[in-house]
Amino acid sequence: MSESPYELYYWPTIQGRGELVRLALEEAGAPYSDVARLPAAKGGGVAAMMKLLRGGGGEALAPLAPPFLKHGPLVIAQTANILLYLAPRLGLVPDDEPARFRANQLMLTIADLVAEAHDTHHPISSSLHYEDQKPEAARYAACFIRERIPKFLGYFERSLEHGDGEHLVGKAVSYVDLAMFQVMSSLTYAFPRAMAAVAPSARLLGRLSDSIAARPNIAAYLASERRLPPSENDLFRHYPELDIEPA
Amino acid sequence: MSESPYELYYWPTIQGRGELVRLALEEAGAPYSDVARLPAAKGGGVAAMMKLLRGGGGEALAPLAPPFLKHGPLVIAQTANILLYLAPRLGLVPDDEPARFRANQLMLTIADLVAEAHDTHHPISSSLHYEDQKPEAARYAACFIRERIPKFLGYFERSLEHGDGEHLVGKAVSYVDLAMFQVMSSLTYAFPRAMAAVAPSARLLGRLSDSIAARPNIAAYLASERRLPPSENDLFRHYPELDIEPA
Repeated sequence: MSESPYELYYWPTIQGRGELVRLALEEAGAPYSDVARLPAAKGGGVAAMMKLLRGGGGEALAPLAPPFLKHGPLVIAQTANILLYLAPRLGLVPDDEPARFRANQLMLTIADLVAEAHDTHHPISSSLHYEDQKPEAARYAACFIRERIPKFLGYFERSLEHGDGEHLVGKAVSYVDLAMFQVMSSLTYAFPRAMAAVAPSARLLGRLSDSIAARPNIAAYLASERRLPPSENDLFRHYPELDIEPA
Repeated sequence: MSESPYELYYWPTIQGRGELVRLALEEAGAPYSDVARLPAAKGGGVAAMMKLLRGGGGEALAPLAPPFLKHGPLVIAQTANILLYLAPRLGLVPDDEPARFRANQLMLTIADLVAEAHDTHHPISSSLHYEDQKPEAARYAACFIRERIPKFLGYFERSLEHGDGEHLVGKAVSYVDLAMFQVMSSLTYAFPRAMAAVAPSARLLGRLSDSIAARPNIAAYLASERRLPPSENDLFRHYPELDIEPA
């Protein structure tokens, strides 16, 4: 099974949650296909993804939503769960049990932050347009910027201090560091003013993000066409009216 | 380390997310202490919990929020992560790897549903009172009842059909079944009208909940003073004005 290539299924036009999986695969230089971005003639496209979501993935339980990973007969959904599966295989988490649980704990906390960042523009329902929930979004985003960004980033900054100052888990790069880079760069895209205000109390996080972006495989990926640009159809969106000064 | 007793840290007056851990420990008949509910004279109380949250838990990384579990030198936070650690030790998940990842996937999906259920009464911010976000709550809850409850419960119902019809993972009770019971009973407490409407399309889930409640250790727990009553200070709240008819 470890010889099978990894098949990632995610929306083909956004970074979204799938990007956390893409970054891990890219850092490791693992052979993978980003199935929904392949042409239909090669068995790809959104239709191939929808087929598995509707239960056409063999014996495995169909996922509720993308991203999901197909690896041999296994179909694994939920971003943190995909990374829990991949990280040991890709050498992106230490071997010892305390480190594995620390990594998963931090990953789930990152997932919580990502969900809240999404809700800044969709606080009422994902099935409504942003334009149909703008007053609620403004209220939500103000609380997110004033309370939640400092709370989460303060926690991750302390987590770096608790470790070696350069890695969230152990003494080498892990999938959690890659996810943290993605969240920091996405928050900076969405909320440049708010992030500028918090930067002085998130120095280690800033340095971690820079060091991840400079890693050879990640730098090559970010410069490639495989890296999709951020946009206002994505999980993190830049709406200037939501990006207030925290103070 | 496996000889150490389990120490659960969670708010002492609500079921909340801690209840998913309590149910697993109770089903297994594992020796544990619910530390914040113990008297201060026995080293318990909220003060003992706050001490660990502020980093007084030895070498381990301090959690961001309750619940967390202390087991020997390990301090583990994030509900799904605590259960990932406990379930194999308590015999509440099958041994094989596909089942473990299926269980974690379903558990994370339950956690998503729980977070959305919380947001029905706190759609803008957890730091504001419900009374300060009532119009937004009404809008959020309507979407939750019309779209999200059917989507999530439909998925879990199909997951039961995909298995043996009685268990979400494998052929014996797992921590995911216990969590599903907690979510079904909490949703029924919070949204009795909405849940009555969805019941005909969630028959296997209804049967699963009944069978969990009837298990000897769980029945004894539910009848004991250890089981806290639901309330409007909890994660799931019954506000009649939010419990609309879905159709």
